[in-house]
Formats: sequence, structure tokens, C-alpha cells
Amino acid sequence: MSLQQYQSTCQARVDAALDALFVAPRSELERLYQAMRYSVINGGKRVRPLLAYAACETLGGAAERADGAACAVELIHAYSLVHDDLPAMDDDDLRRGQPTTHIAFDEACAILAGDGLQALAFEVLADTARNPQDAETRLDMIASLARAAGPAGMVGGQAIDLGSVGVQLDQAALETMHRHKTGALIEASVRLGALASGRSDASSLAALQRYARAIGLAFQVQDDILDVESDTATLGKTQGKDQANDKPTYPALLGLDAAKAYALELRDQALAALTDFDERADALRQLARYIVERRH
Amino acid sequence: MSLQQYQSTCQARVDAALDALFVAPRSELERLYQAMRYSVINGGKRVRPLLAYAACETLGGAAERADGAACAVELIHAYSLVHDDLPAMDDDDLRRGQPTTHIAFDEACAILAGDGLQALAFEVLADTARNPQDAETRLDMIASLARAAGPAGMVGGQAIDLGSVGVQLDQAALETMHRHKTGALIEASVRLGALASGRSDASSLAALQRYARAIGLAFQVQDDILDVESDTATLGKTQGKDQANDKPTYPALLGLDAAKAYALELRDQALAALTDFDERADALRQLARYIVERRH
Repeated sequence: MSLQQYQSTCQARVDAALDALFVAPRSELERLYQAMRYSVINGGKRVRPLLAYAACETLGGAAERADGAACAVELIHAYSLVHDDLPAMDDDDLRRGQPTTHIAFDEACAILAGDGLQALAFEVLADTARNPQDAETRLDMIASLARAAGPAGMVGGQAIDLGSVGVQLDQAALETMHRHKTGALIEASVRLGALASGRSDASSLAALQRYARAIGLAFQVQDDILDVESDTATLGKTQGKDQANDKPTYPALLGLDAAKAYALELRDQALAALTDFDERADALRQLARYIVERRH
Repeated sequence: MSLQQYQSTCQARVDAALDALFVAPRSELERLYQAMRYSVINGGKRVRPLLAYAACETLGGAAERADGAACAVELIHAYSLVHDDLPAMDDDDLRRGQPTTHIAFDEACAILAGDGLQALAFEVLADTARNPQDAETRLDMIASLARAAGPAGMVGGQAIDLGSVGVQLDQAALETMHRHKTGALIEASVRLGALASGRSDASSLAALQRYARAIGLAFQVQDDILDVESDTATLGKTQGKDQANDKPTYPALLGLDAAKAYALELRDQALAALTDFDERADALRQLARYIVERRH
């Protein structure tokens, strides 16, 4: 199966599961649920759910075992984008070519929609009907997601990012920022998927973490490269925005050619981490290659 | 033990546990952790932790079994206040006589601090070291908190509240709002405490839920009464703000005397729900009386 086919399969799977979450339990909550649905059901590529499914299948677990994990990581990702786009944060009016949630609804509604999506992520993981794993494994999944989403993970990364505008970061500091802001949730996506399989052990979890760490960073490096090279139409967001905001980027720090070489090196690290897995890890392998080859 | 003594004991207990959470794991995260600490360690009365401890002890559980639950419900409460105070929401500059988080820090930091506190609540509950309950019970605690905090609970209540400014609500609609906005977390505080005891059953959980529902509403009715009667200095917030914002209140809806009678009726409902419990439920009983007798 090509990566594109696998991605479509995962996307359809998680979108169906996500869609079912946004039915308002009463009419007074209609607008809030619409705002949450708008923030999530948006044609997104579902990279994090794909990672959860692929990690689950790498260890021999059926995809449906990872439905809860896939939904939960995407809900966290979606909430982070809603809050990140707010006027007090990155102040973005467009995302994927569509008005951001606070533009389509209003700022208060966007804050609450984001808050609600975060709670929903944990509700989904704690729901016995959605997660066939034993209770201890599910607690590990919840703890892993909470750590990755929280102040020592993704939220911390956003705080570091906001504090870095106009600051001269070195490569180590830039990586600390990315490892928190996006890397933590990517690692969690892989870990939750692996745990969801019911067949993980310390060694497979460690190998998959090395994989996730490498592709998480590769994704960022490539994003920075594309931000320099692509035009606004292809990206669906304002091109050169990082540079205009004086945010630190890999091309600015290393030069464009060295940034490209670094992305390839990270891809190779990711592939090396998968050496001990059989062909069921091929989706993860294809993804590692795709990340540094994509044009948008 | 007087309610005041019990409250001090619970406050000291939960404050010590909360305080330990706000140690930044690295220097780049210092400001975020300071903002979280500022938002939580503020001399708050810790009503929700008290409910968790008291429900645990009502069923014969030792207080320390409820430390995780007490922290988690207070973290959710604290995050909701930080976001509720934001300019796009209630736009409050003061809380308990101190600058709100977005004033003391900045708006982006306040959004992130709130987001981080919510994640931390689930991290604390999922932490094996803090919660001696069996895994199934802990999953029930997490699911209960997620539902209560999320779009069908507290966040939903805030959305209803924001949509109700200047709208003529009837009593049923006002109660729907309060049952979501504050009632859901109060019910969860009692339920988590009861579950934390390791000795709850369907019947005790149902009785404690009836208690929590009644005091949650009584608290709101009394808050509305105090907002009319107290002055700014006693309340630590701007007096008459609800009326000035044209928000619906019980005195506005029922008249002041009928609102007072309703608060007493709710107290009696709360006490009736505790009939089958012994003297270990006395803290819960004292609290039900205190809620409608307090002057601030």
C-alpha cells in the first residue's frame, strides 16, 4: 500500500471516530460543539493519528485498537492550533485556507472550544468502550498524553516559542523548543499507538521513541525549509511568516543547504531506529521518507 | 472539629501537594510554571478539594487516598478561572483582590498556563504514585473528571453563560447554566473523593451525587444573593458586577426573599441526601449549612 493510500485509510478511520464526538447533548451547547467540530473536521492530514495506527500495526495490533489513541492525539493537536491562532498568541486569521476558529466564531468561543477539545481527548482515552486495552495500559496511555500535552511538553514548547521571538537561539535551544512544541505530541502519538497494540515492551517502546524523536524534528526542519521556499497558495498559510515574525528557523541558523542535509540525516536516524521491525513497520518507514520529500 | 478547622486542614494538605507540582523542569519553562503557580497558590478556600477529602472520609477512606483527586479538581477549577478572566471572556483584572493571571503576566502566558493546568490535572490523576486506587477505579476518576470539565460539563456551562448575557432566562435555563458551569465540577469533586476511598458503591455514589447537586446550586444562589448584598471590599471582586453585566441571577429572577428561601431549601435537600451516612459525613453536613450562611 502506498503511503498516500495508507494515509487516506487512517484519515477516513479517525475522521469517522472524531465526527461522532461532536453531537451537542443539548441545544444550548450547539454553538460550542459546532466550534469544536469546525476546529477538528477540516480535511487535516491526520499525521498524528496515522502515527498511532502505524505504531499499533508495527507491533501486530489491529488498527481499531488504536482508534481511541488516534482520536485523542488529534484532539490535542486541534485544540493547540485553535489556541495558537488566537490574537494574543500567533494571531492567525487563516489555517488551511479557511478562517481560524476565533474568526469563524469569536474569541471566547475559540478559547472554550480549545478547552473542551483538550478535556474530550482525555474523556476518549478513559472511555472503556473505545479502548480494549487493560486498565493499566490505558492509564499509561493517559499519563503519556497528559505529560506530552502539558507544561513540560507541548504547552511548554509554545511558551518557549513565544518567548523566543526576536531572540537569537542556538541550535540546541531551537531543538529544545521544537522537541516540546511539536515533538512531545508526535512521540506520544507513536507511544500511545504502540501501547494500544497490547504488544509493546520496553525495547520496542524505546526504538519507536527514537523513531518519533527523529521524524518530529525532521518535520520541523522541513517545515522551516518549506516556509522559505514555498508560496502562500501551496502552504495555505502566509508564506515567510516565520521570518517576518523574526522567529528562529533552521535555514536562518544553519543556512538552507545545511538545513536540507540535516533533514536527511534525521530521516536516516528514524529509519535506523526501525531496523529490528519487520515489514509491518513499512508505513512508518514511508512516512519518514515522505516528511523530508514533501513540498507542502 | 469545626468546619473552619477542617477547611484549614484540607487547605494545608492540598496546598502542599499542589505546590510540589510547580517546579519548572528546565529554565526555559520558568515563566510558564510561575504563571501556573500564581494561578493556583493564591490563598483559595479549596472548596472542591475539601469536598473530595470529605467524601472520601465519609466512606471511611483516609484523607491521603484523596490527595490526587483533590489536586486534580482544584487544578481544573484554577484553569477555568484563568481563562474565564481573559479579556475575550469576562475581562476581569482582579481576583481575590490580586491581579488576574493575564494582568500579572500577559494574555498569551495566561492562555498557556490555563491549558497547562488542565493537562496537569489529568497527569496527576494518572500518576500511580499519587493514587493508591486500583486501575479501574482510577480510570473511572479520570473519565468522571474529563466529562465534568469538558464541553458537556464546565466548559459547556461557560459557553451557555457567555451566550446568556442580556438574555431573559427562566429558572430552568439558569439552573442548566449553573449545573454545567459550576455544578459539574462540584459533583465530580465529591464523586472523585468517594471513588478515591475505595469503598464506594452505586448507592453511596448516588446519594453523594444528590448532595453535591444540591450544594452546587445552593452555592450559586447564595453567590447571587451576596453579589447583591455585599460590598466590593468583602467580596474581593467588583460588587454588583453580575447585575451591571446584565447577567441572569436568582434574586433578579425570583426576588431576594424567594432566592434566600430557595437556598435554604437546597441546603435541606443536601442534608436529606446524607441521611444514611454516619458522623463521618459531618464535614459535608457542616459545609451544606455554611454555604447558605456565609457572608462572602
